[in-house]
Amino acid sequence: MKSSPAFHNHHLSSLDADHLYHLGLHSRMKLRKIFGDTRFVCMGGSPHRAAAFAKLVADELDIRFPGGYIRPFGKTERFVLFKIGPVISASHGMGMPSTLILLHELTKLLDYAGCDDPVYLRIGTSGGIGVEAGTVVVSSGALNGELEPWFESVELGQRRRYRTTLDKELTDLLLPPTTDIPVTSGLTMGTDDFYEGQGRMDGALVPGYTEEEKIAFLQKAYNSGVRNIEMESTAIAAFCNRAGIRAGIVCTALLNRLEGDQIESTPDELREYSGRAARIGLRFIRKSLGT
Amino acid sequence: MKSSPAFHNHHLSSLDADHLYHLGLHSRMKLRKIFGDTRFVCMGGSPHRAAAFAKLVADELDIRFPGGYIRPFGKTERFVLFKIGPVISASHGMGMPSTLILLHELTKLLDYAGCDDPVYLRIGTSGGIGVEAGTVVVSSGALNGELEPWFESVELGQRRRYRTTLDKELTDLLLPPTTDIPVTSGLTMGTDDFYEGQGRMDGALVPGYTEEEKIAFLQKAYNSGVRNIEMESTAIAAFCNRAGIRAGIVCTALLNRLEGDQIESTPDELREYSGRAARIGLRFIRKSLGT
Repeated sequence: MKSSPAFHNHHLSSLDADHLYHLGLHSRMKLRKIFGDTRFVCMGGSPHRAAAFAKLVADELDIRFPGGYIRPFGKTERFVLFKIGPVISASHGMGMPSTLILLHELTKLLDYAGCDDPVYLRIGTSGGIGVEAGTVVVSSGALNGELEPWFESVELGQRRRYRTTLDKELTDLLLPPTTDIPVTSGLTMGTDDFYEGQGRMDGALVPGYTEEEKIAFLQKAYNSGVRNIEMESTAIAAFCNRAGIRAGIVCTALLNRLEGDQIESTPDELREYSGRAARIGLRFIRKSLGT
Repeated sequence: MKSSPAFHNHHLSSLDADHLYHLGLHSRMKLRKIFGDTRFVCMGGSPHRAAAFAKLVADELDIRFPGGYIRPFGKTERFVLFKIGPVISASHGMGMPSTLILLHELTKLLDYAGCDDPVYLRIGTSGGIGVEAGTVVVSSGALNGELEPWFESVELGQRRRYRTTLDKELTDLLLPPTTDIPVTSGLTMGTDDFYEGQGRMDGALVPGYTEEEKIAFLQKAYNSGVRNIEMESTAIAAFCNRAGIRAGIVCTALLNRLEGDQIESTPDELREYSGRAARIGLRFIRKSLGT
């Protein structure tokens, strides 16, 4: 089996079969036949968004499924995984730990399938800093909650750091020259919590900081070039750097955190906002495919 | 509205309505009527397990739903949330960041509903250390990936630590005196990754440690009293300590990590194993209710 050296773990060759536990798939399935032509791996938080993106790709690339129904592969208890022509659309759940499980298992799957140069895109939502609700932010790089450009991982009781830079060429390709959607580029802060990890005042517990300290920190982040906050970017950037995989992160800002903590948009607005990042991602895919 | 001082955040009183965004509920709904009698909040990783536990509770407590169908409350895109008599059964996804979102929003919900002394239980699965597959581990405390009894959180760029002890009285009540299920008590290590964070060799990338170093670390954890590893315990323990909420963690071990990395059990075995932790949790609930 051909393997890409960039992301092949030689320890796997000692396994009789590799159980991709959280996907409900294993290495002895016909993965090359199903996934061998994958060029784009698109990820979003919820199964609903992954299904919506799969449908959008099928419609736009004119790929037909029997009865119009796109069946997910594997089990759907932890993640969902759709395959639409050269595109995988998958959900990663919320947060770095959940996302890392998907990244490990999906990347092993692509290794077994013989894919050697996939592009990974996170297409999601985020909180904006100094940008209006509805603005799409194409990440130029990822910073952790301490505004540093690395991802920290604890392995066998030791802290390790991995850099979180993103491919500049890919970032440039993701940014449309003109569009009817408000789009900007900027750094993305990836945090391990939605409430206190992002300086919100409206969690269940009294936070150990004041509203003034919160605004001062968000302003400091803005001054460092941060334009949005979410919960997956640094893990994705670090993993893809290690794997030699090009990765892009495209997220709509659902609110401007300099103005508040609560997401008050209506379900229709949220769907429209979420769809904007999807359209930017799809535009890149079409351009890459020359369609 | 009556509020439990232990977990009431006074900053919330300035909000016209509190949007519990990831639950799809808000504070102006009739939460007291629906959730006011909640005494137990049971959480597991996947929506499937939360639904299975809800059904088990309904069957065992003889609570009838129209058509036998237990309808979840709120939106189901991120979490599911069932209410069965005095029991909430909810999914928390995988990892501390996802679990913290549920903890914040569910605890605000119970605050708005006027519940003042709920017990939180995580009923899940884990990797065992020195215990056989199928053994249920009732956590006596939670340690982080560095084997330390605290949870680290980054807030406004500052690292903070919260202690992760668990209520001894509750732990003792969770441990059945005799049972047909293999049960043990021990420390639980909570990590932020399933692969390298738990010392696995079978991730997508070549790990920065050897098999021998892995076994030495797992043995060290065992010698420190750790009997299982999962990805939520320290966040739950830390949050509940801060909130003054009693919390218990009951997880079946799906494998003995001193013997391997892969989960090779069949779906039927996994269902049976997962059901064991649920039965231990339910036994505690029945005993507390005197039924």
